[in-house]
Amino acid sequence: MAHETGDVEREILVVIPLFHPFTTLDAIGPYEALHMIPRVTMQFVSTREGEAVTTDIGLLQLISIASFTNLPNPHIIVVRGRPRAFIVINDTALIDWLKKAHITSTYTTSVCTGALAGLLEGLTATTHWEPYGNLAAYGAIPTETCMSFNGESRMSFLLQCIVLGPTSRHGKIITSAGISSGIDMALHLITLLKGEEVAKMVKLLIEYDPQPPYDVGAPSKAGEELVEKTRQFSEYFINTLPAN
Amino acid sequence: MAHETGDVEREILVVIPLFHPFTTLDAIGPYEALHMIPRVTMQFVSTREGEAVTTDIGLLQLISIASFTNLPNPHIIVVRGRPRAFIVINDTALIDWLKKAHITSTYTTSVCTGALAGLLEGLTATTHWEPYGNLAAYGAIPTETCMSFNGESRMSFLLQCIVLGPTSRHGKIITSAGISSGIDMALHLITLLKGEEVAKMVKLLIEYDPQPPYDVGAPSKAGEELVEKTRQFSEYFINTLPAN
Repeated sequence: MAHETGDVEREILVVIPLFHPFTTLDAIGPYEALHMIPRVTMQFVSTREGEAVTTDIGLLQLISIASFTNLPNPHIIVVRGRPRAFIVINDTALIDWLKKAHITSTYTTSVCTGALAGLLEGLTATTHWEPYGNLAAYGAIPTETCMSFNGESRMSFLLQCIVLGPTSRHGKIITSAGISSGIDMALHLITLLKGEEVAKMVKLLIEYDPQPPYDVGAPSKAGEELVEKTRQFSEYFINTLPAN
Repeated sequence: MAHETGDVEREILVVIPLFHPFTTLDAIGPYEALHMIPRVTMQFVSTREGEAVTTDIGLLQLISIASFTNLPNPHIIVVRGRPRAFIVINDTALIDWLKKAHITSTYTTSVCTGALAGLLEGLTATTHWEPYGNLAAYGAIPTETCMSFNGESRMSFLLQCIVLGPTSRHGKIITSAGISSGIDMALHLITLLKGEEVAKMVKLLIEYDPQPPYDVGAPSKAGEELVEKTRQFSEYFINTLPAN
């Protein structure tokens, strides 16, 4: 099985491409889980080395260590979302880099609306529930099935993650749902890369034993009225953001 | 009940004090949940206005908007953790500000090792499971009980959160467990501040429907062997960090 291929000793470079504006937790969930692992190096990359890219409300900056040109072949790519829309497919520097880097990557992953524009043609995928219906416009097949390691599938309106075996181009893409789901995705990714024990240690170290109030974290659980109100809430927030 | 006091219209200033080094997700979990709410303003504060404080491995900076002196009376304080130890109690600028700001705050909260040094004398509290035994040395009473809004308590070796009514000095302190637990804490806090519906909308918007692999997110679930290995794993990570 895929997760038994994890190799604790392998040196791994994880790259998160930066673009403005971005949703902070999309990037920081996987970052927090991955950055503490021995022989895993995290880097942010953007059009210019040393660039500081700010988050949606401008209080937080991620520092780019390299330009796209200088970091063409990471093992792992984590594309995270932005609040306004899908990745702008005419952000050519990003998309060109992503398409090339994906050829040699071990895994190419997305969180939320970072759903891999241009890589998902004909493939099943997921994203944040709000733009979920847009996936098809990007050539992807929206799926409601979360495939787990043991081959079971779980049906829900939106899945939290898709993990497929690493045996095909499709199989090396992992897409995950909205914002917070990047933490779950990262634990699956760590299993694939470093094995189950390392993933368990990371989970314990970040004390990820979720016990949130209210079982409304997915549209199917929230019900139509709350979903509609949340769309309006989201729209209000997006309208308060500074322009690109 | 406490959560029925939420006032959607109230203007609220949430302040996260900065110090180096810090654990990123401690701050970003609550930040992500809180920053999208109308009439909630998030600010980072440190010794110098405009200061950029970097995270543990130096790839990420939070930008201080104000100095401690200039922002003495926030409604909400979120003290997050750092990887090496508890807040250094001789960081006098921070501790002096915290003690004064706590007098007028509506809620004073902590995530992980941000466990409110100097404010917890004689009070029940929690923190990340690793330094949990140290709470007593800071005058606090470690508790294994998570008090939920409806008055039920849940026993476990480490709790995910403590939420008490806002009717006493004790009651306005919320401490939460390790790193990722700040997201859960923030949802409780939003309920107290803005009411249950806003908290539900935030939960849905960040698609917080956790479905991580492995039920080992707390020491009681992980078992002794994994806990011990995780301590060593953590020690290794801490030793790779740049010096303060």
